[in-house]
Amino acid sequence: MASASVKAPVQPSVDVVTGAYRVVSTTIKVQTDGREELYNLSKTIRDFVRSSGIRAGTVMVSSLHTTCAILINEWQEALVHDVKKYLSTLINKDDYFRHNDPEWSDCDRHNADSHLRSLMLGMNLTLQVAESDVVLGEWQSVILAELDGPRERTIRLQAMGI
Amino acid sequence: MASASVKAPVQPSVDVVTGAYRVVSTTIKVQTDGREELYNLSKTIRDFVRSSGIRAGTVMVSSLHTTCAILINEWQEALVHDVKKYLSTLINKDDYFRHNDPEWSDCDRHNADSHLRSLMLGMNLTLQVAESDVVLGEWQSVILAELDGPRERTIRLQAMGI
Amino acid sequence: MASASVKAPVQPSVDVVTGAYRVVSTTIKVQTDGREELYNLSKTIRDFVRSSGIRAGTVMVSSLHTTCAILINEWQEALVHDVKKYLSTLINKDDYFRHNDPEWSDCDRHNADSHLRSLMLGMNLTLQVAESDVVLGEWQSVILAELDGPRERTIRLQAMGI
Repeated sequence: MASASVKAPVQPSVDVVTGAYRVVSTTIKVQTDGREELYNLSKTIRDFVRSSGIRAGTVMVSSLHTTCAILINEWQEALVHDVKKYLSTLINKDDYFRHNDPEWSDCDRHNADSHLRSLMLGMNLTLQVAESDVVLGEWQSVILAELDGPRERTIRLQAMGI
Repeated sequence: MASASVKAPVQPSVDVVTGAYRVVSTTIKVQTDGREELYNLSKTIRDFVRSSGIRAGTVMVSSLHTTCAILINEWQEALVHDVKKYLSTLINKDDYFRHNDPEWSDCDRHNADSHLRSLMLGMNLTLQVAESDVVLGEWQSVILAELDGPRERTIRLQAMGI
Repeated sequence: MASASVKAPVQPSVDVVTGAYRVVSTTIKVQTDGREELYNLSKTIRDFVRSSGIRAGTVMVSSLHTTCAILINEWQEALVHDVKKYLSTLINKDDYFRHNDPEWSDCDRHNADSHLRSLMLGMNLTLQVAESDVVLGEWQSVILAELDGPRERTIRLQAMGI
């Protein structure tokens, strides 16, 4: 098969960390500005993990909403523009949706497109923690994608491990 | 940059929980009714977490299949209808796929579209657990999206933490 | 409502595992071959988990990049072909993107489409671990989707639990 299995991956070293398990959590609020907007949460998450005392484990970033998303991408101004534009056209807001129709729904935000986009993108992210820091690649940022703003959004952070 | 970093998030309090780590798991079965259908798993997951004795940590919800998905959305009747309709049109089932072609594949379900949709949506979800309950926003429900039913589906739940 | 809640799921048994929590991590490299290509990581992940000594918990599979993705699907040759073809057309590479425009961006890879596709698919996956093995359904494989190769990709694996 063309797409063969991975052969002989390099595994230069394996790190093992042991100790008492702890769970440290907090809630952050983000006031968003537009219907679609992106917010870089990386520094906030890194600061939280460092202050949590967790050396190895994971950190979860969870939106408590159904019309915004958490994702990873490069935080480059040109690309942020492209992502916002792409997300704003992923679903045609003006298509007919029962959720937007007073005959079927008591929601007056007419945001069915925001629900569908969030559902495709995901509202939770788990990241690895190592050496008291979030494991992110050089170009990776953790991004809150507002898809039905402006609003105040609540994001729960939870660091878990040793 | 228009999409600025998050400034001064409110971190009113940080909770820390320590104790002995445990892993509690179970398997649930869901008999689905149509080719596309949605099932609200929230109560089942909440009941499992409460009975697990885990106070703080995470719960994982994992489909053991490749043609159904686990997602979060609001469980409103009008919106459930919209989501089902949207998911049923995300991929054109009648496009040519090798997976549906007896020349290339021994699968007689002709469900390439179901594979592609599941892959886009995701088959695993991790949720935070705090105070012996699943952390979900007011409007969030955990939903099993059947994309190639009717079938009996197996979902593995695993609560982990203190 | 048509899409009713799950009723009386079968919960034949609940397993509980307790013990000392450990975090075991390693990094693997994958040299990719084409602009779009799929790689089956399942065996590599399984071998890592078995060698980690973790009996129950989770394993995280994290790409440290922004133009490749980690997903689950069936590893059937016909379907692998379909998935590659689908992913290669998910975004029109030739649409205008600022990220590809020297006026706006210093990135000379012209890979805005790869960023957008990765963002939709996700770059992290958490899987359950039970009885010293990764919990995967019969047809599930963990797949690295290269979306801007060929390149050498770095994937961090982290097994956590008891």
